[in-house]
Amino acid sequence: MAYRIAVLPGDGIGTEVVPQAIRVLDKIAEKYGHQFEYKQGLIGGAAIDATGHPLPEETLGLCYNSDAVLLGAIGGPKWDNLPTHLRPEVGALLPLRKELGLYANIRPCRMYSALADASTLKKEVLEGTDMVVIRELTGGMYFGPKGRETVDGVERAWDTMLYSTPEIERIVRLAFEAARKRTRKEVCSVDKANVLEASRLWRETAIRVAADYPDVTLTHMYVDNAAMQLVRNPRQFDVVVTENTFGDILTDQASMLSASLGMLPSASIGGNVALYEPAHGSAPDIAGQKKANPLATILSAAMMLEYSFNLVTEARAIEDAVEKVLSKGFRTGDIMEAGKILVNTEEMTDRVLEEL
Amino acid sequence: MAYRIAVLPGDGIGTEVVPQAIRVLDKIAEKYGHQFEYKQGLIGGAAIDATGHPLPEETLGLCYNSDAVLLGAIGGPKWDNLPTHLRPEVGALLPLRKELGLYANIRPCRMYSALADASTLKKEVLEGTDMVVIRELTGGMYFGPKGRETVDGVERAWDTMLYSTPEIERIVRLAFEAARKRTRKEVCSVDKANVLEASRLWRETAIRVAADYPDVTLTHMYVDNAAMQLVRNPRQFDVVVTENTFGDILTDQASMLSASLGMLPSASIGGNVALYEPAHGSAPDIAGQKKANPLATILSAAMMLEYSFNLVTEARAIEDAVEKVLSKGFRTGDIMEAGKILVNTEEMTDRVLEEL
Ligand SMILES: CC(C)[C@H](C(=O)O)[C@@H](O)C(=O)O
Ligand SMILES: CC(C)[C@H](C(=O)O)[C@@H](O)C(=O)O
Repeated sequence: MAYRIAVLPGDGIGTEVVPQAIRVLDKIAEKYGHQFEYKQGLIGGAAIDATGHPLPEETLGLCYNSDAVLLGAIGGPKWDNLPTHLRPEVGALLPLRKELGLYANIRPCRMYSALADASTLKKEVLEGTDMVVIRELTGGMYFGPKGRETVDGVERAWDTMLYSTPEIERIVRLAFEAARKRTRKEVCSVDKANVLEASRLWRETAIRVAADYPDVTLTHMYVDNAAMQLVRNPRQFDVVVTENTFGDILTDQASMLSASLGMLPSASIGGNVALYEPAHGSAPDIAGQKKANPLATILSAAMMLEYSFNLVTEARAIEDAVEKVLSKGFRTGDIMEAGKILVNTEEMTDRVLEEL
Repeated sequence: MAYRIAVLPGDGIGTEVVPQAIRVLDKIAEKYGHQFEYKQGLIGGAAIDATGHPLPEETLGLCYNSDAVLLGAIGGPKWDNLPTHLRPEVGALLPLRKELGLYANIRPCRMYSALADASTLKKEVLEGTDMVVIRELTGGMYFGPKGRETVDGVERAWDTMLYSTPEIERIVRLAFEAARKRTRKEVCSVDKANVLEASRLWRETAIRVAADYPDVTLTHMYVDNAAMQLVRNPRQFDVVVTENTFGDILTDQASMLSASLGMLPSASIGGNVALYEPAHGSAPDIAGQKKANPLATILSAAMMLEYSFNLVTEARAIEDAVEKVLSKGFRTGDIMEAGKILVNTEEMTDRVLEEL
């Protein structure tokens, strides 16, 4: 049986890093005797240029008919002046998440000891950091009622952070399941329950769900404090779960614990078909120069193997290979340090393939 | 003429640090020939214990009839299980801000070179950081329509990020005025205009206001990126302005750029009477042990002199004294390092008085 993978390179360095991940997947296929079947689709700016819309029906159909989606990156200055709903990021990413029912975004965030010096945080603060941030992805202010109106000559605009109990329950449950598989078995639920009604419902629901997971420890933290603790003492976190907007902020912040966005994979799951993409964007400033770090996308492919295909050994093999390449001193520009060996996008992948 | 100061020590270490700031104010009064008249009021847990409510009418009246308010800190485990609207922080702070019309929270955030090693961020990343975060304080999800209901057996809850043009305009204008007085003259407006309607109105308004300040540079940044950039390269910021919830998160995060919350003052302004308080909380864990760092409150008093009384020389004298005390190596526990001299709350103030 072949695993059908929808491949959406997108824009900028997306088109450079996705082929590298495919080279790694091909190597895995060869070594472990699997079959991966790739179908390419248009998304983002590339799709606007070809079809006038950032998420063509055809691409959505391709995703539905696949076992998993591998996405590169979306957007660029060329399309920045379009109306918001047509802009590559918002016009493609948000409907894709909603249509595919991807209610959970998972971002592992760990220290690679080989990269400890490359972060802006002190090594001794980072040491041992190994957390997963789970962000609710189809609710809250992103999709709640919003609008703009003029009343008595005064203009105003609003967005609604709206959550129902089932929406909260499924994401919190997913966090508990993830924690159960980890050593520390801790869930930290981040909210603003001292001010927000939606957060109060969130917290109550988390406490209720926790009763089903007596082996997992649940704690709560206000989002302002969480943003502070992520800088003060990131090691304290195991699994963090939070709503959409807070998660948007905290996952980007947490990415700085690793040396570079270029190292961070992500998975968006919940529906029938999951989506895997690097945490970084399309990086127009370095696009086309073979400088992009392919590791985030390669590690996203590893997450695909684990989460969508349950190929855990294969996923670990990729992760171990990446770790080895880093300890041997190979670096793309974003993680380069004195005394290390600078490689380009393809060469970095070559090194990973060698280790496999 | 005497300056009338409402003094609200509150709970925990609030009752320890506020008297220290008053010692400093007294010294300033003596040295520069001013008169400060203090009237104490109850707030927070202390007010609940005495009157049953965290913000008694009498305290509010006292604030209205003063030229400025000096607040310590609020809350503690003793009152944590009360219903939210009666809890010390929310039941006192939020109505106080709203009643006094304090729509702008100002938090300077700078590096003290004497403390460069005490942060979790690398010294070379922090060097030269000197920014002010201006947070909208009486709008957004804190005060917008909110509720909870059960529809067809499913419970849901919501909060509304609602902003009108005048609300945005006054806070953005305040940021431009602040930037104008600084060397770099840069305003970075933080929003989520790619997703939120309220942010789109925010951004449009900021752009319109900018036309009145041709000497100031305006840039925009998405809140997720801002959270990342505050860790990646904090030096890039001069004046940051943002809405209430984003500001709540970013100010707490930015506080980690300084070595300790114990160093950070804040001012809440906009109405007739402004409020000054340290950024830290009531710290029940160290309350009553003379360990609290009084500098954040002392620096808040300095902000009071500058913003409410226009006593700029006097404010600078306090700030310089604090800087000198730090370079001489005196440290409270929260900023203690090997080779420095540990002092308690009162002794730290003694050192500041000596420098004045
Ligand atoms: C591009 C934007 C709409 C998106 C979001 O806010 O979710 C991005 O920041 C992300 O985190 O994937
Ligand atoms: C205690 C809480 C209501 C308050 C807020 O969220 O504004 C606090 O976090 C602050 O920043 O002053």
